[in-house]
Amino acid sequence: MDAPLQYAKDHADRFVEELKAWLRIPSISTDPTYATQTRSAAEWLADNLRDAGMGDVEVMETDGHPVVYAEHHVSDDAPTVLVYGHYDVQPPDPLELWDNDPFEPVEKDGDLVARGSADDKGQAFMHVKAAESWLATDQPPVNLKFVIEGEEENGSVHLPGFLEEHKDKLAADVCLVSDTALFAPGVPSIAYGLRGLAYVEVTLTGPKKDLHSGVYGGGVENPINALAAMIAALHDDDHRVTVEGFYDDVVALSDDEREAYRDLPFDEAAWKDEAGVSETKTEAGYSVLEGTTGRPTLDCNGIWGGYTGEGAKTVLPSKASAKISCRLVPNQTPGDITEKLRTHFEAHVPDTMSLTFRDLHGGHGVLVDREAPAMQAASEALEAVFGQTPYFTREGGSIPVVADFKRILGLDTVLMGFGLDSDSIHSPNERFGLDRFHQGIEASVRFMDAYARQKEAA
Amino acid sequence: MDAPLQYAKDHADRFVEELKAWLRIPSISTDPTYATQTRSAAEWLADNLRDAGMGDVEVMETDGHPVVYAEHHVSDDAPTVLVYGHYDVQPPDPLELWDNDPFEPVEKDGDLVARGSADDKGQAFMHVKAAESWLATDQPPVNLKFVIEGEEENGSVHLPGFLEEHKDKLAADVCLVSDTALFAPGVPSIAYGLRGLAYVEVTLTGPKKDLHSGVYGGGVENPINALAAMIAALHDDDHRVTVEGFYDDVVALSDDEREAYRDLPFDEAAWKDEAGVSETKTEAGYSVLEGTTGRPTLDCNGIWGGYTGEGAKTVLPSKASAKISCRLVPNQTPGDITEKLRTHFEAHVPDTMSLTFRDLHGGHGVLVDREAPAMQAASEALEAVFGQTPYFTREGGSIPVVADFKRILGLDTVLMGFGLDSDSIHSPNERFGLDRFHQGIEASVRFMDAYARQKEAA
Repeated sequence: MDAPLQYAKDHADRFVEELKAWLRIPSISTDPTYATQTRSAAEWLADNLRDAGMGDVEVMETDGHPVVYAEHHVSDDAPTVLVYGHYDVQPPDPLELWDNDPFEPVEKDGDLVARGSADDKGQAFMHVKAAESWLATDQPPVNLKFVIEGEEENGSVHLPGFLEEHKDKLAADVCLVSDTALFAPGVPSIAYGLRGLAYVEVTLTGPKKDLHSGVYGGGVENPINALAAMIAALHDDDHRVTVEGFYDDVVALSDDEREAYRDLPFDEAAWKDEAGVSETKTEAGYSVLEGTTGRPTLDCNGIWGGYTGEGAKTVLPSKASAKISCRLVPNQTPGDITEKLRTHFEAHVPDTMSLTFRDLHGGHGVLVDREAPAMQAASEALEAVFGQTPYFTREGGSIPVVADFKRILGLDTVLMGFGLDSDSIHSPNERFGLDRFHQGIEASVRFMDAYARQKEAA
Repeated sequence: MDAPLQYAKDHADRFVEELKAWLRIPSISTDPTYATQTRSAAEWLADNLRDAGMGDVEVMETDGHPVVYAEHHVSDDAPTVLVYGHYDVQPPDPLELWDNDPFEPVEKDGDLVARGSADDKGQAFMHVKAAESWLATDQPPVNLKFVIEGEEENGSVHLPGFLEEHKDKLAADVCLVSDTALFAPGVPSIAYGLRGLAYVEVTLTGPKKDLHSGVYGGGVENPINALAAMIAALHDDDHRVTVEGFYDDVVALSDDEREAYRDLPFDEAAWKDEAGVSETKTEAGYSVLEGTTGRPTLDCNGIWGGYTGEGAKTVLPSKASAKISCRLVPNQTPGDITEKLRTHFEAHVPDTMSLTFRDLHGGHGVLVDREAPAMQAASEALEAVFGQTPYFTREGGSIPVVADFKRILGLDTVLMGFGLDSDSIHSPNERFGLDRFHQGIEASVRFMDAYARQKEAA
């Protein structure tokens, strides 16, 4: 394993320059005006995988953005690792809050600042470069498959169908994903839990058209006021969600999990500072870490209605809308929670109004067995890189496809992430530490070796 | 009086063409990008007043958009009528709901469809053409002054200062304004009451930046959810405003006013149809007419925060904002109500958030003595035009300057409006009936005559 590790060191600068080139392509999957650039980002990656020495590389079509697939077969006896990642990125707005062009990467204080640097181009690319490091120096100890999709930020809408269609081609022993975070700077961790997501949009319509608030005010119900009341009623005084049956299927945190939460070196002051809040707010009875990773939530992600420009327009608006999403935990399902939200909203529409309810997307939460060979291999790899045993943690974010890999391909997933909460993913000035980029390449090289040994021993 | 009335008939078509030319100038006073066009609309009007035979016409500067002033002096013995109106218009958005370009007037079903057609260019122009009809045929029976401002839709911010500064020049006996509505099509009315306005903007800031809802959701309070709760709490179950002291200074509707309300030929089904609502909603104990004209209100005029584009962005936003305005009745004052709103919001900001509160503008409500000579003259003029005695009514909208004319110049105002609730002022497809435009010119010609006689008799 020395040769590939040395190769990665020798080519570290070139790897960074290649990543920058990829980050310059604005692959915003949710915005149709960026369709061409999104495809370009896929083509760019395919070329890079070919250059890395992966034998079989394809840009495979879906009904949405394509999947980049690559394969290198070593031996029928070797275990197969399927690396999953995504080449699409979040929209960069609000643009005015960026210090640089989000698609012109800048190195700053050891970080690479660009949209997608941490989520997920930078992290996916670590495995591409780990594969290159093996292929350029030695036969890898595992068979390798890459599935890098272009719709993760849009709910991975076509990936489940893709996995179904190519089930045989994608057969593997384990899935490896880097799209999560280290517990803290320099503190390695492996995520064994992820939250799911149910994301909806509601629109209340009152008057058929915008009205003059002088002429009609006092005689008709205002959809903004009415929507505000509906949103306010979604939480009780304990900050619990009031939607009927919301907590029915929640797997409660076990006593030993809650104990492990308490043992984590969590710095609440630093967390508040990073979040930019003076006070935290959690469901009654739960700590911040529990609330953000082990408990379900409901948040408004956007709201709009009426006049929002400069000055004072005395309009009594026709409509008001909100985007609302719930983070879910096992065994809540997005389909069930979405239906419960629908039932709740439909039951609470004022007499004077009509409701439009849209299911935007959803994903399942995940819990992985911490004792599996791949989890132990990841632990071994991270310990070698960081010089300390990694923590097993739960993450608050969602990677819905992890549940799909289990359901469709029967694969457990190792979540070996190198992000940090301070990476500002989904926010202005997203960044990824270059030290972590190189640590990630090393960990990936080491994981392939450790996993082959752990599997052989098992 | 036959000659000016005949003149108005003979030149009716030209009058309409002139109005169309004026409507083509997008004088949107609240939007700084339309500053040039707003001034052009003032210059256009000044030229038209000169052509109408008004002797002394000036475009007078303020610290904002200019005031168009015109004067014709008949005799020191004749009473002086000061006509007030405004040449600025509301923003036209949402543009996609217009059937035609809002600044390219179209005649449709007898209406002129364009932004400003009813509010207020079309109505102000009736008096310009009435003056022309007198001046072209006979000496008017009253001295005439015109004050047509360009900031009514922006709270007439510079008009009070203008009135103070030119107090002597603007000396008159009564103020005449057409910026209100007929009670119903063909049913004349004179407004003796107007509501005031207090318009504010609030912004709640929670996290210092937008956050990822997966990473932080469940640990921090969401400003959209928090703002929604604050807005929801602004009304109680009786749809009364909960702001402390809000009703303290309200002059209650008198028994004979409530009886007059009941006598009005009000068609609630038609009103609901026009408003585009299936049900009305009023403060408990009040009718729709009372609620919309004689009682104070609180409405959200706009709300925004977080991600409002296409698709699903899982952001936990930093800020949420709302525009909120109250319609006031005598003797509530905008300054006092704004302070009560400020106190209320400041008292209810969650611990985790900070508040920004902006006073956008305000205006006083008005009640005028129904027995004054000018009110009787208006009644006489309208009866001649419509063949029936007009109703005295209260209007729900605000013309804050009416209170300023009283306070600064000591003038009562006659509100002789020709709008209709169906004119969609402040909404897409604003319109003004050409029949009402011509009736308004006739009424204005007749008012000048009747007022001179009523004053002489008094």
